[in-house]
Amino acid sequence: MATNGPISGHNSGGIQCCKAIHLPLLTDLYQITMAYGYWRSNKCDQNSVFDVFFRRNPFGGEFTVFAGLEDVVKFLHGFRFLPDDIEYLRKILPKHVEEEFFEYLSNISAKDITLYAIPEGSVVFPKVPLMRIEGPLPIAQLLETTILTLVNYASLITTNATRYRIALDGRDIQLFEFGLRRAQGIDGGLSASRYAYMGGFDGTSNVLAGKMYGIPLKGTHAHSFVMSYSSVDDLNIRILANKTTGEKVDFVDLCLKYQKELSDLLDVLQSECSSSEFAAFIAYALSFPDSFLALVDTYDVIRSGLLNFSAVALALNQLGYRAIGVRIDSGDLAYQSLVAYEKFRTIGDKYSLDWFPELTIVASNDINEDTIISLKEQKHGINAFGIGTHLVTCERQPALGCVYKLVEINGHPCIKISLDVEKVTVPGRKSVFRLYGKEDYALLDLMQGAEEPAPKAQSKVLCRHPFQESKRCYATPSKVEPLLKIWWQNGKVQQKMPDLEEIRSHVQNSLNTLRADIKRNLNPTPYKVSVTDSLYQFMHNLWLENAPVGELN
Amino acid sequence: MATNGPISGHNSGGIQCCKAIHLPLLTDLYQITMAYGYWRSNKCDQNSVFDVFFRRNPFGGEFTVFAGLEDVVKFLHGFRFLPDDIEYLRKILPKHVEEEFFEYLSNISAKDITLYAIPEGSVVFPKVPLMRIEGPLPIAQLLETTILTLVNYASLITTNATRYRIALDGRDIQLFEFGLRRAQGIDGGLSASRYAYMGGFDGTSNVLAGKMYGIPLKGTHAHSFVMSYSSVDDLNIRILANKTTGEKVDFVDLCLKYQKELSDLLDVLQSECSSSEFAAFIAYALSFPDSFLALVDTYDVIRSGLLNFSAVALALNQLGYRAIGVRIDSGDLAYQSLVAYEKFRTIGDKYSLDWFPELTIVASNDINEDTIISLKEQKHGINAFGIGTHLVTCERQPALGCVYKLVEINGHPCIKISLDVEKVTVPGRKSVFRLYGKEDYALLDLMQGAEEPAPKAQSKVLCRHPFQESKRCYATPSKVEPLLKIWWQNGKVQQKMPDLEEIRSHVQNSLNTLRADIKRNLNPTPYKVSVTDSLYQFMHNLWLENAPVGELN
Repeated sequence: MATNGPISGHNSGGIQCCKAIHLPLLTDLYQITMAYGYWRSNKCDQNSVFDVFFRRNPFGGEFTVFAGLEDVVKFLHGFRFLPDDIEYLRKILPKHVEEEFFEYLSNISAKDITLYAIPEGSVVFPKVPLMRIEGPLPIAQLLETTILTLVNYASLITTNATRYRIALDGRDIQLFEFGLRRAQGIDGGLSASRYAYMGGFDGTSNVLAGKMYGIPLKGTHAHSFVMSYSSVDDLNIRILANKTTGEKVDFVDLCLKYQKELSDLLDVLQSECSSSEFAAFIAYALSFPDSFLALVDTYDVIRSGLLNFSAVALALNQLGYRAIGVRIDSGDLAYQSLVAYEKFRTIGDKYSLDWFPELTIVASNDINEDTIISLKEQKHGINAFGIGTHLVTCERQPALGCVYKLVEINGHPCIKISLDVEKVTVPGRKSVFRLYGKEDYALLDLMQGAEEPAPKAQSKVLCRHPFQESKRCYATPSKVEPLLKIWWQNGKVQQKMPDLEEIRSHVQNSLNTLRADIKRNLNPTPYKVSVTDSLYQFMHNLWLENAPVGELN
Repeated sequence: MATNGPISGHNSGGIQCCKAIHLPLLTDLYQITMAYGYWRSNKCDQNSVFDVFFRRNPFGGEFTVFAGLEDVVKFLHGFRFLPDDIEYLRKILPKHVEEEFFEYLSNISAKDITLYAIPEGSVVFPKVPLMRIEGPLPIAQLLETTILTLVNYASLITTNATRYRIALDGRDIQLFEFGLRRAQGIDGGLSASRYAYMGGFDGTSNVLAGKMYGIPLKGTHAHSFVMSYSSVDDLNIRILANKTTGEKVDFVDLCLKYQKELSDLLDVLQSECSSSEFAAFIAYALSFPDSFLALVDTYDVIRSGLLNFSAVALALNQLGYRAIGVRIDSGDLAYQSLVAYEKFRTIGDKYSLDWFPELTIVASNDINEDTIISLKEQKHGINAFGIGTHLVTCERQPALGCVYKLVEINGHPCIKISLDVEKVTVPGRKSVFRLYGKEDYALLDLMQGAEEPAPKAQSKVLCRHPFQESKRCYATPSKVEPLLKIWWQNGKVQQKMPDLEEIRSHVQNSLNTLRADIKRNLNPTPYKVSVTDSLYQFMHNLWLENAPVGELN
């Protein structure tokens, strides 16, 4: 499965599109006006530190999966304004803006930027910096919007995908992403396919995503295919060769023979089976004898679709081909899938075909996480889901609120205070450690000043809630993992970038370190995010210093 | 305001991105496998007719605005598989697929496709075909997914934008789209900016959208800008020239003078005003003396931000510049905006500045349609909204369900039946007319067979509900408008494509033909979509013919 090399740039996924639409201008106007303000205030060499973090987990859950890092690194790699961009900026900025400012803009790049980040595909939690961006103030500022755009949706859709996988509760059921037509734009569709796969989906219907990211492609046919045939008279090809012997057989006659037999076995009138559907299935099987999967709900799943499918599947079987299964796209999925399974068992018994009851039953009508959970509680015969709208648009919560906040300027930590405590930022350059407990489950994440010594395994650490004074605990970790690594510095990528398959495995490994009660759908347990006592003291002192002193009336 | 020419292809918006990511593969795998099935069944020359329509209006509303047509026409214009695409398809299709099929794919284009559509920016309703695509079956089929991707989100976001404008109830309040960082991917962000403007927004913060589509850009500065200054000692430039006389003045001293005066006037201690904020505002005003708009909630809107802003605004005024206003991004927007307005009035009175109370007050914290309605009911001093997440992700309903359904094949109308009546399609090639009543309000949309004579103004027409036999009415329209026009035929664009500004005006004109009760937020009146008696009879006969005959047990 081909994916991207470290920074090959050319065949490397999102970047094709990114380069084509040329990202540095994909930003908010205020980044440009602020850059000018900084430039005029002689702040171009001030060193700034920004944290990227979110305040609340999405989907009512208690975890998030961080994604989008590879695209961010590629964005840094290519970050520069081209003459054409400068021309446009000259047009939109006031006339008095100095030529020297445009010269400054023409010459900037991300070479003096350092990017720290948690590895892509890791589970992450509110308030913890997913990324720390350090460098000259105007440049770090200019990166904000694009970085947020690259991280917010990527993390959201990856997290959403993992939740579907978790809802399956370890059962051996395949998940396919079928959402392209409902995605929020072209790139929304491509990102959805890529990050759903990263989050644990097994494939996509999106051909371009298959080509760009090497994701396995899945698909069968649509209702229109069935409706475009009226009867077997439409079939100009009738012959199929036996897979083993090569002997050529009139496949249509063979299918008709089985249709008749099954109509007796399943107690359905042969005349009830749609002749249009029957012809379409035969045509499809003649085109794809080795991968026959039929959409069985164009007319009536139980009185037509299943019988027509099974007749064609038995005919294929007689010629040495094994059908894959059926897709159901409407109606009561639990009931119909159980009926399908029962019919496949009856047929399997009658024709002594063990594998017949194991045929794939794909369900694909407006599935979301709750449908999967509810189906599980009922009972069903589905062994694959095709998921579209709810997955790709993240209907339950269509945006993740990552923010990009200044935490230090020229060595001075800063705090953004707010009447809303949730919006107060944790100041300063920080490092983050994940502390593990028994059985290698993650206990908590600990933020501390970058200069504080790392916590040690087997040693007691005081961990405090960042905002609530009374909440504190001692932890004695069995293992301590530093979360932030340097990915970009001195104009160069600093680590081997993992490919899509590696990140996809990392997602599952990282999720495996979380206790099940943190991951569950209903009333999950919050995961602890703490600060050291020293960071707590520092932060609250700074908060007091900065809080406006009002009068109480 | 520059926008796109008819089909210049190069400087023409979305297509840059579209071309770059090369759209024909941005489709579902099953389109390709079906194309092969059709090819093998010798169906390449069968003429097919597909309708694009949706089943329900979004956002609990009773109207939708159709958008995405220009991109669809551009997609048809460039539709062909390149050698590289064919190579990829060869890899993913079974080995037995004939070389002739790939030759066939290599040679197809949209030259034999005819595209009918309702003009972009028109209000549209459920079940009515927004587009009718006619042409060779495999080719029309191959267009499905991409067309839906281009239309679904575009129409959704345009509709969403119009709803914000409607919620303002005709009041003179500006709407800015600030959602890029929360959009679903890069292209999601660009489309959001473009279609929000089409739907009636006044500007965007998205610089690339400004460049690509000629949309007015808006923006001020972020909290980080404020936090990056600590006091006026940070300001290396202090001088500003009087706009009229050119006389150079120490602007910092002037601001300090006004800060002192206002602290007395507004009864706030000068020491309560954040010195970091004050310095940042001065720096920003020095950079943009003609367009000073300040974010006033970094520390405390009432005790610091408003006073600091006003001091700088008065200093600017003394030198002949007029400030624009403030932005509030947190807290109680209704209350704070009223306080801001009151303070501006007090200051205006004191300094005899009529325009001071008219300063812009932008609100921008997590605004949605309901917030706007609720603020209106309270009372507020806001005269511009910056709207992000809820607008661009269409949080209330993040997907529009446009579908692409086969309605005729080789001259034979087809119907997709379903146990779910809502999912039954209206068969055959149809034309659609909008019937207008008194005062030029739209009365209803009428679908009929393409061969039926058009209804006439001033003549009585029997209009029937497509599914409910008892629902029927006579209408005597004052005006009849045919809705579907030919946009693409014989490999050529068939009409002048309107530019973004023209479509934007059309949106408002089209909305103006709808009665207010259809557009209101709460319990809107449904708009009638009807069929002629002849189409009703035809459709229900075909339905009966195709319904499976089951036994009742």
